[in-house]
Amino acid sequence: MRIVVVGGVAAGMSAASRARRQSPDVQVTVFERGDWVSYGACGLPYVIGGEVEDFGRLVARTPGQLRDRDIDVRLRQEVTGVDATARTVTVRDRETGRTLTEPYDRLLLATGVSPVRPPWAVTSLAGVHVLRDLPDGQAIEASLEGAKQACIVGAGYIGLEMAEALSTRGLEVTLLEKGPEVAGRMLDVGLQRRVRAEVERQGVDVRCGVTVEGLTGKEGRVTGVDTDGGHVPADLVVVAVGVRPNTDLTRAAGVRLGETGAVAANDRQETSVEGVYAAGDNTESRHRVTGRAVHIPLGLTANRMGRVAGVNMAGGEARFPGIVGTAIFKTFGLGVARTGLTQAEAEHAGLDALSVDVDSTDHAGYYRGAAPIHVRLTAERGSGRLLGAQLLGHTGSVKRVDVVAALLHRGGSVGDLFELDLAYAPPFSSVWDVLLVAADRAGQELCRE
Amino acid sequence: MRIVVVGGVAAGMSAASRARRQSPDVQVTVFERGDWVSYGACGLPYVIGGEVEDFGRLVARTPGQLRDRDIDVRLRQEVTGVDATARTVTVRDRETGRTLTEPYDRLLLATGVSPVRPPWAVTSLAGVHVLRDLPDGQAIEASLEGAKQACIVGAGYIGLEMAEALSTRGLEVTLLEKGPEVAGRMLDVGLQRRVRAEVERQGVDVRCGVTVEGLTGKEGRVTGVDTDGGHVPADLVVVAVGVRPNTDLTRAAGVRLGETGAVAANDRQETSVEGVYAAGDNTESRHRVTGRAVHIPLGLTANRMGRVAGVNMAGGEARFPGIVGTAIFKTFGLGVARTGLTQAEAEHAGLDALSVDVDSTDHAGYYRGAAPIHVRLTAERGSGRLLGAQLLGHTGSVKRVDVVAALLHRGGSVGDLFELDLAYAPPFSSVWDVLLVAADRAGQELCRE
Repeated sequence: MRIVVVGGVAAGMSAASRARRQSPDVQVTVFERGDWVSYGACGLPYVIGGEVEDFGRLVARTPGQLRDRDIDVRLRQEVTGVDATARTVTVRDRETGRTLTEPYDRLLLATGVSPVRPPWAVTSLAGVHVLRDLPDGQAIEASLEGAKQACIVGAGYIGLEMAEALSTRGLEVTLLEKGPEVAGRMLDVGLQRRVRAEVERQGVDVRCGVTVEGLTGKEGRVTGVDTDGGHVPADLVVVAVGVRPNTDLTRAAGVRLGETGAVAANDRQETSVEGVYAAGDNTESRHRVTGRAVHIPLGLTANRMGRVAGVNMAGGEARFPGIVGTAIFKTFGLGVARTGLTQAEAEHAGLDALSVDVDSTDHAGYYRGAAPIHVRLTAERGSGRLLGAQLLGHTGSVKRVDVVAALLHRGGSVGDLFELDLAYAPPFSSVWDVLLVAADRAGQELCRE
Repeated sequence: MRIVVVGGVAAGMSAASRARRQSPDVQVTVFERGDWVSYGACGLPYVIGGEVEDFGRLVARTPGQLRDRDIDVRLRQEVTGVDATARTVTVRDRETGRTLTEPYDRLLLATGVSPVRPPWAVTSLAGVHVLRDLPDGQAIEASLEGAKQACIVGAGYIGLEMAEALSTRGLEVTLLEKGPEVAGRMLDVGLQRRVRAEVERQGVDVRCGVTVEGLTGKEGRVTGVDTDGGHVPADLVVVAVGVRPNTDLTRAAGVRLGETGAVAANDRQETSVEGVYAAGDNTESRHRVTGRAVHIPLGLTANRMGRVAGVNMAGGEARFPGIVGTAIFKTFGLGVARTGLTQAEAEHAGLDALSVDVDSTDHAGYYRGAAPIHVRLTAERGSGRLLGAQLLGHTGSVKRVDVVAALLHRGGSVGDLFELDLAYAPPFSSVWDVLLVAADRAGQELCRE
C-alpha cells in the first residue's frame, strides 16, 4: 500500500504518523514544497513576541527523525498534478526544476490555506509580510531590525496576536480593520468592543472601518499604508486579512469542493474521488451545532482530520466527529475564547436564539488576584438547547469554555450546564462558577418568555 | 407561610435568599447559633495564609443587609429542639439563656458538620485548634502571635491548605497523617505520593503512618504532640482529621439518617418528616456515577442544596441533580483536582475499572512557562464509560477537570471525551489537550483487552 501525502505540516504529518502506526505494510511518502515539516504554525506570533525562544522550537520532529520512523519526507518537492485515474502525482523538484511521476494507492491532500493578499499587498517593497508559514515568521523577524512603526492590516485573531507581539518588541503598532470592530468573526459586538478597548489600553492605535488603498515606499522599503482615512506611517506591514484554501491541486484531481469553497470530505476524510483523501486547513468540517459544513481552519481540527485520514488510508477505521466551533486566543493579558455559535451566527443560521451576559470574577472575589471574567451564553428559545459561549478574561481563566464545548457535543441544554458539579475552591472559582451563573441567568430568561 | 432555617452559613443562607426571591408571601427566619452568617468558610485557610485581607472579607452579606432583604436573621440563637407534630422549634438565646418556641410551616435543617476531635484533642491547652467556622480561623490567627512551630494533624485537603498557609506565615510545619499517604480520600496512591513530594519540597516535614497519642503543654499552652513515632515540638496544633454531620437536632425531629450517617433527603431536599427539609454539609447527596448516596460536604453542593430547598419550601419546584464527586484544592503552587471516582473508589464500588496516567504540559511545550500537568483517567472496562479523572498541575491548569465532570453528568464515554473540540492556542494548551491525550490512551487500553 503506497500512501502519498501532499503537505507536511499539521494534517499531513499527523496522517503520515498515524498511517505508519496503523500498519507496518504501508509505504508513506510526504511531499512538502517548503523547507519545513512538522511544526506548530500557531506558535509563530509567539516566536516573534519572544515567548518562544526561536523558530526551531516549533518543530516537533525533524525530517531525519521522521525518516527514522520510516516516513519518507521529501522537502522542496511540489506536487503539481494528480491523475486520479492512473493514481499518480506529478512532483516538481523546486531546486532542480525536474519533475517525476509518483504512483499512489491512497493520496492525501493536506495543502492547507494561503493568506489572502489584496492587490495592494502584492508588492516588491521590503517590510510587507503575511504570516502563515515558518519562513513568513522568519521574514518578519528579519524585517524587525531597525523597525519602529508597525501597521497590521486585519484585526482577526492573527492580527490581534501580532499586535501584542510587535508591541512587546517595542514597536508602535497601528491596527487597521475594514469591518466595524476587531475580532469580527469570533465574537458578538459587545465583546468585540471590550477586546478593542483592552488593545487600545495597551497603546495600540486601533482604527476600524478603514479601507487600505495602497502602500507607500522609499528605496525599496515600505514607508506607510494609504487608507481612506489617511496615511499611516509604517516600516513594517503585516497583512492578516484572512486565508483561502489551497484548492488548485484538488480541482486538478477532480475533487469536489464544498459550499464554503474548501474541499468537501466525508467523516472518513474521503473526497469525491476514490482513493483521494483531504484533511486539514484546506478541508471543510461539519459543525455539530448547526449540522452544516463550515470552513474553520484551526490547529486541533487539522491534526484530528489528519489522524482520521491516516488511520483510514492505512486500512483502519476512524471518523471525524465534527467540530463545535471552539477557538481561543490571547492578546496582551486578555484571553478570548468562544465555542458554538455567537448570537449573530445563531440568527444567521435561522435559529431563534437569546444571549445573556454575566460579569464576574475568575475566582472568589475575596481571594488575591481575582480578575474580571465576562461570559456571554447563547441558547435556543423554546428548547433551551445551548448554542454557544463567548468568554473574555485573564489568560488563565477562559479555557473553561471547554465545559460548554463538552455539552455542545451532545446537544446539552442550559439546564444541563446549570446542573454541573464544577470544581470549586476560592483560588479556582466562585462557589457558583461564572458558567453556572450564566446558565442560571439564561434559564431565567428562557422561562420568562 | 413561615419558613424557619436552622444554620446561617452556606446552605441555610442560600435557602433563605431563594425562598425570599421565590415568593413575597413567605416569612423567613434564620437562627444561627454563632456570631456570623453568610460567609465563605472555604476561604478561612487563605485569610490565615494572607491571600485574603481579613476575615470580614469572607462575609458575603451582613445580618443588616439580609434584614434589609426581609430575611429575619437571629444570631446567637441555638435551636435545641424540634416538635415536628406541632411544627415548632425550641430556641435558646445563648446570651440570656432564655428559650422560646417558634412555629414553622417549613423547617430547614442546615446544621452543617463539626470537626472530629479525637480524645487527645479535647484539651484546655491554648494553641490547639480545629478549623471549621470563622471563629476557629480567628482563634488560629490569634495563636499565631509568637508561634514558631506548627503541627497539623490530618493531611486531607484542609490539612494541606493549612500547611501552605502556616508555611507562608513563616512557621516550621510538621504534617502528621495516620494513613499511609497524604490526600488519602481524594486521589489514587501514585498521585498522593506526588502531592506529598511537592509539600516536602516546600519544606514541610510530612510524616505518614503516624498515630497521635497525646499533647504536651506548659503553662497552659501546647508545646508538642506525642506520637507513636516520637515527640513533635509545636506551639500551634491544628487538628484536621475529618468532620461529622451535626445530626442531634435531626434525630430529635425524628428525621431519618442515611447509610452514610448524614441526613437523608430526596432530590427536593425533603427529609423523611413532612415539612422538614435538610440541605448542606449535614446532608447526603446522590453520586451520579455510582447512583449511591454519599456524604461529601463541599461548598457548591451545600449552596446548591440550599437553593433547591429554598425554592421548594417557598412553593416552587426545584430538584437537586446529584454530584459527580468533583473537588479541587491547592497546596503551595500545586493544584489538585478530581472528579468522579478514583481507581480505588471504582473498585470499591464493584466496578471493573482501568486507569491511565499521562504526563504532559499545561500548554504548548515551546511556549514560555509550560508547566507539568498529570492526568489520571479512569474508565469502565467493556462499556468504555468514563468513571473519573484526577489532575495535578500548576494552579491555573487543573480546573480543566470540569470538562470530565461535564461528561460524567450524562454518562459520557472515553470516546466522547476524545471527540471534544477543546480550545487550543499555544498559550492555553497543547494541540491535543492533555485530556484528549488521556482519552486516547484510555481508548487504546480498552481496545487492547
